[in-house]
Amino acid sequence: MKSYEKLEVKFRRLSNFSHLSAMVAWDEAVNMPTGSGEARNEAMVELETLIHDEYMSPDVAELISRAESEVDELNEWQAANLREMRTRWLRHTSVSKDLVQRLTFARMKCEQAWRTLRVENNWKTFAPLLNEVVQCGREEAQQRSESSGLAPYDSMLDLYEEGVTEELIDFSFEPLRKFLPNFIPEVVEKQKNEKLVYQEGLISKDHQRALSIKIMEFLGFNFEKGRLDTSHHPFCGGVPDDVRITTRYSESDFTECLMSVIHETGHGSYEQGLPIEWRGQPAGSAMGMAFHESQSLFYEMQIGRSESFLNAVTPILKEFLGREGDPARLWESENLHRLFTRVMPGYIRVNADEATYPLHIMMRYEIEKELIAGSLSVKDIPEVWDTKMYQYLGLRTEGNFKDGCMQDGHWAAGAFGYFPSYTLGAMIAAQLFQAMEESLPNVQSEILSGDLLNVKQWLNDHIWSKGSTLNFNDLLVKATGDTLNSQIFIRHLKKRFLED
Amino acid sequence: MKSYEKLEVKFRRLSNFSHLSAMVAWDEAVNMPTGSGEARNEAMVELETLIHDEYMSPDVAELISRAESEVDELNEWQAANLREMRTRWLRHTSVSKDLVQRLTFARMKCEQAWRTLRVENNWKTFAPLLNEVVQCGREEAQQRSESSGLAPYDSMLDLYEEGVTEELIDFSFEPLRKFLPNFIPEVVEKQKNEKLVYQEGLISKDHQRALSIKIMEFLGFNFEKGRLDTSHHPFCGGVPDDVRITTRYSESDFTECLMSVIHETGHGSYEQGLPIEWRGQPAGSAMGMAFHESQSLFYEMQIGRSESFLNAVTPILKEFLGREGDPARLWESENLHRLFTRVMPGYIRVNADEATYPLHIMMRYEIEKELIAGSLSVKDIPEVWDTKMYQYLGLRTEGNFKDGCMQDGHWAAGAFGYFPSYTLGAMIAAQLFQAMEESLPNVQSEILSGDLLNVKQWLNDHIWSKGSTLNFNDLLVKATGDTLNSQIFIRHLKKRFLED
Repeated sequence: MKSYEKLEVKFRRLSNFSHLSAMVAWDEAVNMPTGSGEARNEAMVELETLIHDEYMSPDVAELISRAESEVDELNEWQAANLREMRTRWLRHTSVSKDLVQRLTFARMKCEQAWRTLRVENNWKTFAPLLNEVVQCGREEAQQRSESSGLAPYDSMLDLYEEGVTEELIDFSFEPLRKFLPNFIPEVVEKQKNEKLVYQEGLISKDHQRALSIKIMEFLGFNFEKGRLDTSHHPFCGGVPDDVRITTRYSESDFTECLMSVIHETGHGSYEQGLPIEWRGQPAGSAMGMAFHESQSLFYEMQIGRSESFLNAVTPILKEFLGREGDPARLWESENLHRLFTRVMPGYIRVNADEATYPLHIMMRYEIEKELIAGSLSVKDIPEVWDTKMYQYLGLRTEGNFKDGCMQDGHWAAGAFGYFPSYTLGAMIAAQLFQAMEESLPNVQSEILSGDLLNVKQWLNDHIWSKGSTLNFNDLLVKATGDTLNSQIFIRHLKKRFLED
Repeated sequence: MKSYEKLEVKFRRLSNFSHLSAMVAWDEAVNMPTGSGEARNEAMVELETLIHDEYMSPDVAELISRAESEVDELNEWQAANLREMRTRWLRHTSVSKDLVQRLTFARMKCEQAWRTLRVENNWKTFAPLLNEVVQCGREEAQQRSESSGLAPYDSMLDLYEEGVTEELIDFSFEPLRKFLPNFIPEVVEKQKNEKLVYQEGLISKDHQRALSIKIMEFLGFNFEKGRLDTSHHPFCGGVPDDVRITTRYSESDFTECLMSVIHETGHGSYEQGLPIEWRGQPAGSAMGMAFHESQSLFYEMQIGRSESFLNAVTPILKEFLGREGDPARLWESENLHRLFTRVMPGYIRVNADEATYPLHIMMRYEIEKELIAGSLSVKDIPEVWDTKMYQYLGLRTEGNFKDGCMQDGHWAAGAFGYFPSYTLGAMIAAQLFQAMEESLPNVQSEILSGDLLNVKQWLNDHIWSKGSTLNFNDLLVKATGDTLNSQIFIRHLKKRFLED
């Protein structure tokens, strides 16, 4: 067997271990009883250590080098696969085994505690646990930086979207930072006079779950290879052949669950759309989190909250959720569109509207950079949070940890460098949608009639079927003809909120 | 570190891998979408291969031998742990890697197909899949026999309950084989004149689930470290710190779910009762399937279907399941006791009553012995099944595969040697209960008043806290003062069905 072929066998093995890891992680978030964390954490650390050991084994490095010297014999996919193997190898081997173990323990412990402590608004108990994770995060960034040659925070960003740097983020966030502070009050002002009918009373989880499944089917989610469950925070887990989407139900506000389901269905559709013949190989996997988020936001923001889509699904929503005595206007498309495009500065990122969302991301980005750099201590996070929240969104969070700096689990889980993906994803989504509209002039009327076949085909052709064969920039340019361009996102916001 | 200590580290690692395996196997039965089997099977085979490789690594054999030569330095628990390590090592290393992989694939494929094919009564498609599993099973028995020195089928029995042999089974089954054929008609005749009120209409799954949880709490199940879910066949999976019990709901007959929940709670209580300080070590694990089944049948048969227990829970059953218009007699203890002790020859093992159940086991035992010996072919199973079913229970199953030889998943899953555990377990349970009654003279009135503390304490002292430190015979003799004695089970049956 040639070196490259041996590597395919090796990475298939690693992919099988990732399969186990993904399933057990999903279980931890969805099913695990509260008292089972300790035993589970030990098992997970064992698995992470094993995966680390497999990457560290000298034959992997040797095979990669040898295969690289024979790269001329490989076709395009194989060459891309080899590149991705090198990337993954570098990611896994740049952190010491000791740190992998400490990090896995610290973040599982912190993340599990966070679930309870957040509800209790208990920053005092949470802070030392988070501090341990931040300490590990700093070491991680340092170790990664040493082997990648990137700056420490860049080497963390690189984990979530290869090639994305602080420079790129600053460059693309800057126009938004200038635009949004004036734009948001303008939208709020305009919407003030729009009549809006809200849900009255409670809509049961069962009804919302039935609707969620119906909408997922409408969007083409394949339930033969996936599920919908309930978790604390909605997420998309599992593997391409077994995609596990979760949501949560607020009986007093059906809009939360519906949009989170559409969002996660975007993630899930990307996974399900990856090329089957490259299963288990790095090149056949999804891109990083920015592109992943672009797919969920394409589904949620570009399609889900659009007038055409909401027109198409209005009868379904009414059928599944409507009750006697509802105001007639509640289930009219115009009202639904207004409900789903309401702009209103708020405390909670996951509940934020499309216009204020980037500001939530920017403040997290600014804070986590400093955390990793060591110029901000965990104990000072609440104060900085309060200051930035006031500066960006006019809201105070002093003493309100649970709706402030304790609202997200990302840092607890050690995911420094992850947050920017959300806004990069929003920008990519807008850019992809614009490119799709240019090549499919009838797409709006197709969406209006409930036909998403061409949309899915376009995404499949330009994103899903490519796996990870192209880098961030090349994939974006091939799909849209442009590098990352925040102006397209800004135009989309203007069109949606001021012109419609 | 001493050899023994190194082995503890090694087996803790193996226990962590088993944790992952248990969780993913539970997920496969409870959650996995129908189209995800292929990818899952590959991941599971990878894990099984890894575990096999870990056992095969030469240092394990060497460490065990070296530790055995230093056994004088170990305390009682450590010495027992070392013996169990040797047993597990032997079990894992006597089968070749190639066969482990073929077997895992064949049985996962067959078991997954069985779920659909059984419903379709499709023996034709099922038979070749089962044949592959049987072929692998024969090879397995052969390989195990070669390294254990036991006869092939004995070496399979040994997997499910160490030390149990065909000879012991024949010896203990024989009295039942003589007793039951006359006993059953006598009971049926006696019960013919008993008035019995059955459930009318449907009782929703939600109500049954709420009752199930209530009853599990009543029995002392720890939900901080366990769950109740739904699956095709009820089972108890997971790990001691995260026990996953499943059931299924028949809306037209609440008795099925209730007793299966009590049964699985017996399994689960055993797991939850294992000594915490020996977590992750072989000696701290549960005994084999016969003792495991003795715990579930202790809960279901000795306690759950007893007059005292049913008296105690009657108000709960009525509160959770009762509806307006129910006949008053339905929720009276006497009626419930009759419902739960009805004897009636039927096709389905899992629905069988306590008296006919052993006959279901005997025929399976006879058939699987021949399958492993090669004296019976898969294609001939339906005919033999029909013959034995008629002989033992007076029922014909010609053409009715789904209620005949396709009703169980055990052979599909390659579990040859497993079935006898059920009846061994029933006998042990009766023997344990008798011993407990002798040492706790007030236990019946305690059960009647809903107080199970002493029962649990007795089981804990005599079974749960022992882990696997004693062998089959020693554990039984220490707990009951007697070796396996079918007469006690027979006395129990007579008392329950003819004297009460």
